[in-house]
Amino acid sequence: MVTLENINIDEIIEHMRAALSEGDWDQATTLLESLRRSDQAEIFSDLPPEQQQEILPLLSPENSADILEEMEDEDVMDIANRMETQRLVEIVDEMEPDEAADLLGDMSSEQAEQVLSQIDESEDIRYLLEHSDETAGGVMTAMDVHIKQNMTVDEAIWHLRHLSPDSEDIYYLFVEDEVGHLVGVVSLRQLVVAKPGTLIRDIMDPDPIFVEVGADQEEAARLMQRYDLLALPVVDADSMLVGMITYDDLLDVLEEEATEDIYRLGGVPKEQPSDVRLSSAMKTRLPWLVLNLITALLSAAVLSIFEGTIAQVAVLAAFFPIVAGVSGSAATQTLTVTVRGLALGDIAPREGWKTLGRELSLGLINGISIGLIVAVIALAWKGTPILGFVVGLSTLLNMICAGIAGVLVPLLMQQLKFDPALASPILVTTTTDTFGYLFYLGLATLMITSLV
Amino acid sequence: MVTLENINIDEIIEHMRAALSEGDWDQATTLLESLRRSDQAEIFSDLPPEQQQEILPLLSPENSADILEEMEDEDVMDIANRMETQRLVEIVDEMEPDEAADLLGDMSSEQAEQVLSQIDESEDIRYLLEHSDETAGGVMTAMDVHIKQNMTVDEAIWHLRHLSPDSEDIYYLFVEDEVGHLVGVVSLRQLVVAKPGTLIRDIMDPDPIFVEVGADQEEAARLMQRYDLLALPVVDADSMLVGMITYDDLLDVLEEEATEDIYRLGGVPKEQPSDVRLSSAMKTRLPWLVLNLITALLSAAVLSIFEGTIAQVAVLAAFFPIVAGVSGSAATQTLTVTVRGLALGDIAPREGWKTLGRELSLGLINGISIGLIVAVIALAWKGTPILGFVVGLSTLLNMICAGIAGVLVPLLMQQLKFDPALASPILVTTTTDTFGYLFYLGLATLMITSLV
Repeated sequence: MVTLENINIDEIIEHMRAALSEGDWDQATTLLESLRRSDQAEIFSDLPPEQQQEILPLLSPENSADILEEMEDEDVMDIANRMETQRLVEIVDEMEPDEAADLLGDMSSEQAEQVLSQIDESEDIRYLLEHSDETAGGVMTAMDVHIKQNMTVDEAIWHLRHLSPDSEDIYYLFVEDEVGHLVGVVSLRQLVVAKPGTLIRDIMDPDPIFVEVGADQEEAARLMQRYDLLALPVVDADSMLVGMITYDDLLDVLEEEATEDIYRLGGVPKEQPSDVRLSSAMKTRLPWLVLNLITALLSAAVLSIFEGTIAQVAVLAAFFPIVAGVSGSAATQTLTVTVRGLALGDIAPREGWKTLGRELSLGLINGISIGLIVAVIALAWKGTPILGFVVGLSTLLNMICAGIAGVLVPLLMQQLKFDPALASPILVTTTTDTFGYLFYLGLATLMITSLV
Repeated sequence: MVTLENINIDEIIEHMRAALSEGDWDQATTLLESLRRSDQAEIFSDLPPEQQQEILPLLSPENSADILEEMEDEDVMDIANRMETQRLVEIVDEMEPDEAADLLGDMSSEQAEQVLSQIDESEDIRYLLEHSDETAGGVMTAMDVHIKQNMTVDEAIWHLRHLSPDSEDIYYLFVEDEVGHLVGVVSLRQLVVAKPGTLIRDIMDPDPIFVEVGADQEEAARLMQRYDLLALPVVDADSMLVGMITYDDLLDVLEEEATEDIYRLGGVPKEQPSDVRLSSAMKTRLPWLVLNLITALLSAAVLSIFEGTIAQVAVLAAFFPIVAGVSGSAATQTLTVTVRGLALGDIAPREGWKTLGRELSLGLINGISIGLIVAVIALAWKGTPILGFVVGLSTLLNMICAGIAGVLVPLLMQQLKFDPALASPILVTTTTDTFGYLFYLGLATLMITSLV
């Protein structure tokens, strides 16, 4: 019986650690090279800079390029900055053009020019460098196989075989006319199963999905995801085929977008690696907390208005966390469902009213349930029926308010072209806090004679 | 100049809407069929049930199968339940085995058996039905091409050409030995560029990454993402090749997992489509709010203890939202970064102490900043230096507390095998609420003589 075993990475890491602690760089390098590329990159990027500097020269430029391609941009920059230009040129020369452009784009333009001037085929990289990181042009790969619509299947295969591009994997071939306009797409499988003499134009799909070079990377990702595409052709304003976005780029974009939403909903406006410098983490998070502080002043002002009521009936304070907090949680639930629904396209902007009606009903139903429980708790705990009534009713009102704010705020943000994940959480909880205190202390003030 | 235009879906929808309102089902169906499959599915699933029922019989079983495959499981079940068995059998017969198994798995076993008994090749579906939805076996596709290691390249291509499997796209071919054990992988590209007489065993990668049939779908997704795989072979306990997980399944799993995390962090314990029934949405959300309510009682109890202090210095209440709220936001920031770091594998469990140290320092720095601002606001607003001191110091202490809770709670949850995204938010905000009131009112009580 055959037994397959996925390589035990932990074991190899342990051996490597031993070799590293003995300063046996050759042994450590050999162990590293025995792993798959993705694992090499992960382990290498976890090493302290001094060890990286010992090992990198022992790896071939090809291998170094592969490892650097898989690493985080920030880590790659640190390594590149510590490297001699000659060595850097050798490595960049072996990198995929899109990855090379990412690296050079992060450098100063003089530094990048110094590297580019020593690379033989620098046009691809230069072309990619013209596009911003977040656009289709910024994530695309240059085309290195050009299939014309008037080739036969065996000409196309001959073409593939002789170029033997070991660059990124090929799943589809994008077909060009004589001048280079995108006119179709043919899958490698179609090529393999077609009769050799068939013309490419006769088997290609003449209506390929594509994206323009300046489009947002999110738009490209959405198209690829929607149509289950492994590669998406990129065209310029004249419909000329200029590159393609591949599957691995899509995965990166999707992960980036999901992380961005999660971070923003959690009040961290900018995604950062978990080992970012403390000062940089502070710069991202502190301003957001200050903004929180400013909005909190609104509910502080409401509380301040009712100072007299609180002084007379201090027992009221005990229920603050309940009236404001539980509705805040309900608002966060509604907000989460709405923001994710908008992101996944499940909630169309024109269906906003439907969502509002739904969440309003839910706020009412959950509000009655929670309001009743809260009223009973207040009555049982403090023995005052009027207090129970005030706590219960204000909770109910605030739950309805939570349902409305949780839907309206993100829809409005979307209308105003803001990211609903970014600005909404802070606004929604401010709303439930402020209205919670307003309902609760307003009602209590009206009934003050029965409460004292 | 060639001009490419992505199909204008909105325009076609408008024409369809017109045809539908006139009851012109043939025209509506023709318009629907002119779209790409993913778009057909989306538009079809948005139609009211009566219109779906008119159009479905006009579509071919192949086309119906394609549309149902792309739709949400719940919607498909609704449609299947309204369909005659004979028609359902025709459609299921045209579905991918993995999609057919998903559909039949949601039905009662008698209903599923009734359909299966009338399908010619039901073994594949029956085999897939044995595995739970969330496992590798549940998302895999059965293999319909079997490539043996002793075939030559042209035999393999002949094999492909003659089976011409139009099922899911093929990017890699998984290679078996004589009995069917997984022994290697070869890409379609390698096959195309290799010399015809070469043996598959000589060009294949003999060390493929694979997953066991019972493994969690998340594990499969992580492997595919880590190694940028388009297809992952699935083996049984005897290393026999039993299926593969493809790219489109991976995208679905990744989206599911991201949505699950977002929902759980937002206090919605179970993901639901945005048009789920109200009763079902209530069942998911209300218990979570009740749990919130119970934890809120803890801070209510703290406030109740200090009722005397509040009665004496009612002005204290104005700063509740600031002392508790801003630290709550800071804790949510820390929690978000930690939970996402754990999910993406950026934070290894053994690196927990590093993360704790980092967030503790951040809590201290941000705490000093926010504490100072708050103290100045309190002084300027209420004109009492001691109040400023109490508000500022308790905010600082609570910010440190937020940093600790934001890291420790999710790490602890992970250790206890709970999902950190699920249980942590509620625990973390309870901590900052409770400690916030404790620090603030405790300090105020100690200094009561200077405050009155």
